[in-house]
Amino acid sequence: MTKHNHQTAPTRFIEANGIRFAYRRFGRAGGVPLVFNQHFRGTMDYWDPAVTDGLAGNHEVILFNNAGVSSSSGRVPTSFQEMGANAIAFIKALGLTKVDVLGFSIGGMVAQEIAIQAPDLVRRLILVGTGPRGADMATSRSAEIFAATYDSPEYLWLAVHFSPSPSSQAAGLAFLERKLSRDDRDPEVSGEAASAQREAIGKYIAPADRVFDHLKNIRQPTLIVQGSNDVIIPTVNSYILQRNLPNAQLILYPDANHGSFYQYPELFVSQADQFLRSSHQGDDANLQPAERLPFPSIVSEAI
Amino acid sequence: MTKHNHQTAPTRFIEANGIRFAYRRFGRAGGVPLVFNQHFRGTMDYWDPAVTDGLAGNHEVILFNNAGVSSSSGRVPTSFQEMGANAIAFIKALGLTKVDVLGFSIGGMVAQEIAIQAPDLVRRLILVGTGPRGADMATSRSAEIFAATYDSPEYLWLAVHFSPSPSSQAAGLAFLERKLSRDDRDPEVSGEAASAQREAIGKYIAPADRVFDHLKNIRQPTLIVQGSNDVIIPTVNSYILQRNLPNAQLILYPDANHGSFYQYPELFVSQADQFLRSSHQGDDANLQPAERLPFPSIVSEAI
Repeated sequence: MTKHNHQTAPTRFIEANGIRFAYRRFGRAGGVPLVFNQHFRGTMDYWDPAVTDGLAGNHEVILFNNAGVSSSSGRVPTSFQEMGANAIAFIKALGLTKVDVLGFSIGGMVAQEIAIQAPDLVRRLILVGTGPRGADMATSRSAEIFAATYDSPEYLWLAVHFSPSPSSQAAGLAFLERKLSRDDRDPEVSGEAASAQREAIGKYIAPADRVFDHLKNIRQPTLIVQGSNDVIIPTVNSYILQRNLPNAQLILYPDANHGSFYQYPELFVSQADQFLRSSHQGDDANLQPAERLPFPSIVSEAI
Repeated sequence: MTKHNHQTAPTRFIEANGIRFAYRRFGRAGGVPLVFNQHFRGTMDYWDPAVTDGLAGNHEVILFNNAGVSSSSGRVPTSFQEMGANAIAFIKALGLTKVDVLGFSIGGMVAQEIAIQAPDLVRRLILVGTGPRGADMATSRSAEIFAATYDSPEYLWLAVHFSPSPSSQAAGLAFLERKLSRDDRDPEVSGEAASAQREAIGKYIAPADRVFDHLKNIRQPTLIVQGSNDVIIPTVNSYILQRNLPNAQLILYPDANHGSFYQYPELFVSQADQFLRSSHQGDDANLQPAERLPFPSIVSEAI
């Protein structure tokens, strides 16, 4: 049997919830698989092969398009709760009873909803460049960046994922080269699908009373990763997530924007692999949450 | 030649700046040594052997008492700038021209001053449980915790370094056992020395205009580590450091207080060793700082 990787894993399909889900599966089988949840307008081809293949060394990696995205059938729902329910149906249709879940950007919002709706299904969570319900988007430049035009359409992702520094932009070009090296690519996301994702974001970030309270129910060991200056989902949201999740480690990378883990793929793979394989953060069932101390005044004023 | 460790390394002395500095040196020689800067009221015996011996596997470790502390002669100055100058004199007296510097709590404040005063001497910085000049201490419970009485004097350090959760307190007891296992211990810090350290803290945290501006001059790759709920130096200060240093990675540990790295010594040693040995964050001289984007509103109001 051929050992597949990011570039060679065939696209397969499975039915669940009336949706035909496209997915790819590769890496070291036999342990708890790691299910990747993609960002706004992204398909399976938008992941960085340095990250997926890096993690595939010690983990089985599962990429998929959620309902209505690219080669998966169905419609994109207008809430992350529904996207989470679809993801759970997909995971269960594969016959899996325990997975690790990685979510990037709105994929991290879906990942949180998966953990809330199916706590027994999820062993550990990795949340990259994301935020909680009620996320503070005040300083986000997302609308402006996605609305702009670029010399090459792919340069949009340099603006989204990388900082303006020469070293970050150079890392961005290397990422694009890795990203674009697969030949049989997924179809791009439709305008209708992107609109539904945008609508879900709008609902998710609406302010609400005690909007972070439900985070205490996500008891899985969690690794939160973000860039120091995320202009899509502002970095303070990872800080808020870390303070409100009972068992979360936070890592922020320097000089980095939304695609922090694509800028430092080796470092990320090493840290994520250690997080997934070690028991430093204990197991969900046994963790006693820390006393929730008051927020520092600097932060509590606004949240 | 015997290979020494935390428990067996002899206390040696060296003169500089008119001070007789006590120090211990062990671990893997031949590379860039790692110089440890201790917290309020701490001596060389206050470090966690799991951390020092862990890092000594790949690095030469240098512990010392700064001027006026424990077995070192002289007086404790009443500013971290002066403590930094003394530390630089000590390092140079050892004949070293390049070191990595780790600072914990007020030792992290000294470490920053070392990097500012002697940028060419410092290769990389590790800042644990600390804050910048002008640190936000509004929610610190330091005064109350240090003023309280405890069944055993050592239990003070459970309150300082560990969270109230059963798992953190258990980690704290294991730390105390490690810490107290050396027989020929340094004298405790005098009341006079502690008072001078307290005075230095008072000056350091005084609000001032553009108090974070000088941080952009600390261009060394930096690793910042703190607990999720540091009640001595509030955790938000690491977030502020990360945002203002040009090349800093931030790691926050869950359910952890001031002594976060004593709660997760294996994880810390692994991450710190990787930081010191890899080039993920590049070299100081070549780094182009990221564009400094505006603070999120949530944070900018207060700083």
